[in-house]
Amino acid sequence: MANKPYGFFDDSSREFVITNPATPFPWINYLGNEEFFSLISNTAGGYSFYKDAKFRRLTRYRYNGVPMDNGGKYFYINDGGTVWSPGWKPCKTALDSYECRHGMGYTRITGSKNGIEASALFFVPLHTWAEVQKVTLRNLGNEARTVKLFSFVEWCLWNAQTDMENFQRNLSTGEIELEKNDAFTAVYHKTEYRERRNHYAVYSVNVPVDSFDTSRDAFLGAYRDASNPVAIENGKCSNSIASGWYPIASHQLTVDLAAGESKTFVFVLGYCENPQDEKWESKGIINKKPAEAMMDRFATNEAVEAAFADLKKSWDGLLSHYTLESNDEKLNRMVNIWNPYQCMVTFNMSRSASYFESGIGRGMGFRDSNQDLLGFVHQIPERARERIIDIASTQFEDGSCYHQYQPLTKKGNNDIGSGFNDDPLWLILGTTAYIKESGDFSILDEMVPYDNDESKAQTLFHHLKVSLDHVTNNLGPHGLPLIGRADWNDCLNLNCFSNTPGESFQTTENQAGGVAESVFIAGMYAMIGKEYVALCNQIGKEDEAARAQAEVDKMEQNILTHGYDGEWFLRAYDFYGNKIGSNENEEGKIFIESQGFCVMGGVGVETGEAEKALDSVKDRLDTEYGIEAIFNRI
Amino acid sequence: MANKPYGFFDDSSREFVITNPATPFPWINYLGNEEFFSLISNTAGGYSFYKDAKFRRLTRYRYNGVPMDNGGKYFYINDGGTVWSPGWKPCKTALDSYECRHGMGYTRITGSKNGIEASALFFVPLHTWAEVQKVTLRNLGNEARTVKLFSFVEWCLWNAQTDMENFQRNLSTGEIELEKNDAFTAVYHKTEYRERRNHYAVYSVNVPVDSFDTSRDAFLGAYRDASNPVAIENGKCSNSIASGWYPIASHQLTVDLAAGESKTFVFVLGYCENPQDEKWESKGIINKKPAEAMMDRFATNEAVEAAFADLKKSWDGLLSHYTLESNDEKLNRMVNIWNPYQCMVTFNMSRSASYFESGIGRGMGFRDSNQDLLGFVHQIPERARERIIDIASTQFEDGSCYHQYQPLTKKGNNDIGSGFNDDPLWLILGTTAYIKESGDFSILDEMVPYDNDESKAQTLFHHLKVSLDHVTNNLGPHGLPLIGRADWNDCLNLNCFSNTPGESFQTTENQAGGVAESVFIAGMYAMIGKEYVALCNQIGKEDEAARAQAEVDKMEQNILTHGYDGEWFLRAYDFYGNKIGSNENEEGKIFIESQGFCVMGGVGVETGEAEKALDSVKDRLDTEYGIEAIFNRI
Repeated sequence: MANKPYGFFDDSSREFVITNPATPFPWINYLGNEEFFSLISNTAGGYSFYKDAKFRRLTRYRYNGVPMDNGGKYFYINDGGTVWSPGWKPCKTALDSYECRHGMGYTRITGSKNGIEASALFFVPLHTWAEVQKVTLRNLGNEARTVKLFSFVEWCLWNAQTDMENFQRNLSTGEIELEKNDAFTAVYHKTEYRERRNHYAVYSVNVPVDSFDTSRDAFLGAYRDASNPVAIENGKCSNSIASGWYPIASHQLTVDLAAGESKTFVFVLGYCENPQDEKWESKGIINKKPAEAMMDRFATNEAVEAAFADLKKSWDGLLSHYTLESNDEKLNRMVNIWNPYQCMVTFNMSRSASYFESGIGRGMGFRDSNQDLLGFVHQIPERARERIIDIASTQFEDGSCYHQYQPLTKKGNNDIGSGFNDDPLWLILGTTAYIKESGDFSILDEMVPYDNDESKAQTLFHHLKVSLDHVTNNLGPHGLPLIGRADWNDCLNLNCFSNTPGESFQTTENQAGGVAESVFIAGMYAMIGKEYVALCNQIGKEDEAARAQAEVDKMEQNILTHGYDGEWFLRAYDFYGNKIGSNENEEGKIFIESQGFCVMGGVGVETGEAEKALDSVKDRLDTEYGIEAIFNRI
Repeated sequence: MANKPYGFFDDSSREFVITNPATPFPWINYLGNEEFFSLISNTAGGYSFYKDAKFRRLTRYRYNGVPMDNGGKYFYINDGGTVWSPGWKPCKTALDSYECRHGMGYTRITGSKNGIEASALFFVPLHTWAEVQKVTLRNLGNEARTVKLFSFVEWCLWNAQTDMENFQRNLSTGEIELEKNDAFTAVYHKTEYRERRNHYAVYSVNVPVDSFDTSRDAFLGAYRDASNPVAIENGKCSNSIASGWYPIASHQLTVDLAAGESKTFVFVLGYCENPQDEKWESKGIINKKPAEAMMDRFATNEAVEAAFADLKKSWDGLLSHYTLESNDEKLNRMVNIWNPYQCMVTFNMSRSASYFESGIGRGMGFRDSNQDLLGFVHQIPERARERIIDIASTQFEDGSCYHQYQPLTKKGNNDIGSGFNDDPLWLILGTTAYIKESGDFSILDEMVPYDNDESKAQTLFHHLKVSLDHVTNNLGPHGLPLIGRADWNDCLNLNCFSNTPGESFQTTENQAGGVAESVFIAGMYAMIGKEYVALCNQIGKEDEAARAQAEVDKMEQNILTHGYDGEWFLRAYDFYGNKIGSNENEEGKIFIESQGFCVMGGVGVETGEAEKALDSVKDRLDTEYGIEAIFNRI
């Protein structure tokens, strides 16, 4: 309730409503569920990308910028010299009213000033490679008014990493085309299209404009920024065509509004691809057909409303698969709206892009994506199926796997590599969760490549088997699983030694002879091994079930013999064979992960060790704010 | 003269003087000649680093920021609520006077407002890992005044690349210590010092402060930037100690000035290292001795003046080695001041950091560094010697070499790799230039590693020999040198084919069977081969001289037979054996590079082809703005 001044949940419309734009941090929403995504903050900051936040970034964003949340989809009103934005930023002109509604796959930002209201609805329509922006200006007063409306986005030169590093290249490559007719005005960003790219971006509005800019320098003016572009001060863009330097897109409309009248404009920020042999309309002129078809689809307010209704209907459907009615408003809200919504977002992006993850440091996680499946598989089983196949395709024949993969290429990420020894087990858990929801055992017979090499394809069931066996093929001196680079705790790099500043402990070579073992992976093996046994029995592979059950039994015994510390489960053995998470340790005597997973795996449940471990958790890790991960208090 | 309004050359003080801060682009100077460097613009934007702009970045800079030139070494005056900066930016408060003097290794920025003058002298003293800033406030009026003075730098978390990518890490790691006593106030930036680093940075002032900030959020305030920090508006910092997030350093002094009085403060922005076993003063408290010694050295204005005089004296010496007195003021200026100064800058940085090179995309160039030698070897032969050894150490045993190397590690850069087939020859040219200036033949006997592996060390002369032979060991079907990835024109990637957007043509694998040949390298071979022959004769290696001369003769013949197009030298043969830079081509009929180098190599000088080629250059490439590189006009 302390934060009440900033906003509230509106459960009836499934929205979070922000009423004060100056939130302590940008509060953001994620638009798009399929292949086109946008991050958008409550002041319209953020960026868009196609599939991959690193390799197909459409618009520029400045992480770690000052002021924070720098770059976005900005609209400006110049009302007789008073310049403001409906989202407050970037002008920061004080507004008469402000509201941001973050809903299911859309964000609506409304501001008013001196009797003019501007409302912008941002959403990514279903099956569309575009963000649609429906902007409505309304005259709240009794007299006719004329205002200037400006849009502004800054193009990213596709690769978000080189975009901020390689200026020798960037400043020479930017290319723009403009298309202006009675039906629309479109700025095309076609950098590198002449070279090897078959894709471009477009930012359009469904009316002819009075003026436009495509050069940042022309639009902003020297020594200025997005808070006070010179074009907006002038009330007019300069019809600049960027060639190199910093390509942008800005439309300028002059809008007459009778008393009480409102007018709506549709902006489309889209991404298009052409087949190699249909790249060009004529020499040097890009083939705009896919963009024109996209603009046609959203040419009228009615069409946009219909697309928006489709999106809402889709979310109504997704959220109806499982609902809860309790007496607790917050529990209902979490279970019925925001938790499934978050699960969908994390399924889409697997933490590859957020306001703290710059979208260029990593791809989708192997482990993460399998975990994310668990939260949404009941909503979209068919997409979970596809994802399982994608993930499994980045696995190696010995069951190990790339820790991450790039969503654009679906190829494993060599930078981070392999060797996180819990990773393979998660594939079993994701798959059994999918089968439990869908009853679709046929997925087990799908032929799935190893290391993205079709010639090495085997059934998905084969993948599950090698996943399980990867653990028992890699046991340490206590018969417990070798941890490899790390397990669920990515920072528990027990075999990785480095004295070089900046060198990643995760990607440095393991020191030879490492015997560090993870009791967490052992507990996972017990738990997930039983899932595997049940699956085998279900599909008539009784021999395989019996074989696996015997391994699980052995693992349980090893845990109780070597992985239990008297009152709780150990966390690990380190490189030198010393205990981690033991009463013997000065710090870090008990860790939560191995307690949770060993108990979920049933280890010591019948013989009492499990209950004692949970009592130790209660004694040593429980606080009024939840359970701590590690006991470090004296 | 068109730009006269922005500034002028002051030859008597060897300065360029800027009189209007709003230059079309930031006009910058480079401070430091040895191991500590700063880039500084005419509005005090820029950053500092120790040796390597990628791996040891001290302060943060935002390339491609808006407004441009975002981040620097800023001073602010709060004079009874009027806030301004002597360099105009970042406040952009209109000044009563402004002047920036970019001199030899220093920059002095002076501004005044409402009867107060603030002047900041920035320089890196000789043999010092620090930028010293001498700030003088002067009361120009007849009444006593009191103003608040603020400093502000933002720390970079050492690696300039991950600093802008990996926020999951960055936001958790920032660490600061503060030391305040009667003699100075110092903010220590010690991020990762606890972990694997043995170095920290410090920003100090030689007086006790009234207040300070080390947290960016506390200093700037939410939704603000460097143009209007909340601390400055408040007239006081909040004594914040950063823990994670964004560590900065800001000092705040309250300065009383009698009529006509001036006061000077010395700020030191420094870098320090400790031996591994002397890292700590006490548990968690860094060993500050090297920083304290540094601050002691610059504790008084007199000491700073003396250090500044030493720097001037050093430049007087450097610029006295070769001077010219002509009737042309501009020629004198270029030869006596700015060209040698530029040569020193490019020697120091080899284009690894500028306002267009972000300092993280590349290291020092093998070819570039050898070329840069030619311009300054008469000024500092002993440093040229060291550089030659460093460069040669990144060479491979077959004469090929890394195209770039990192200045911090002096190791070859694997990202860009090898295969630029002109590179090896430049080492010969750099070495012979050094010997011609210094007479120091002993460098040829220095043992120099291959691929930085001491066990593979051979004499430098051996390096020169394999450099030369690398060309003749890699000849194409016309007996001309294979180009490899490229030659002097880094973009002439004739063997490199890629359809993958964003893939570098320079680092993609060459297509197998490539026979592209470079006439430019052939001309270089003729020219530099003769240097090598002369060197061999000089040191009594007549047999080697004769062997090399025979190869050079053969190459000249091959050029004239297969590399001449009737009226000029060809540029190359491509992957398929087709001519590049020929009258047969529709575009790009003649290129400048092969004309220049073949003629300098003496090819066709006696038989007339050289003169004809130069006539063709005059006919086809010469313009009133100089010689074009390629003939493309119809």
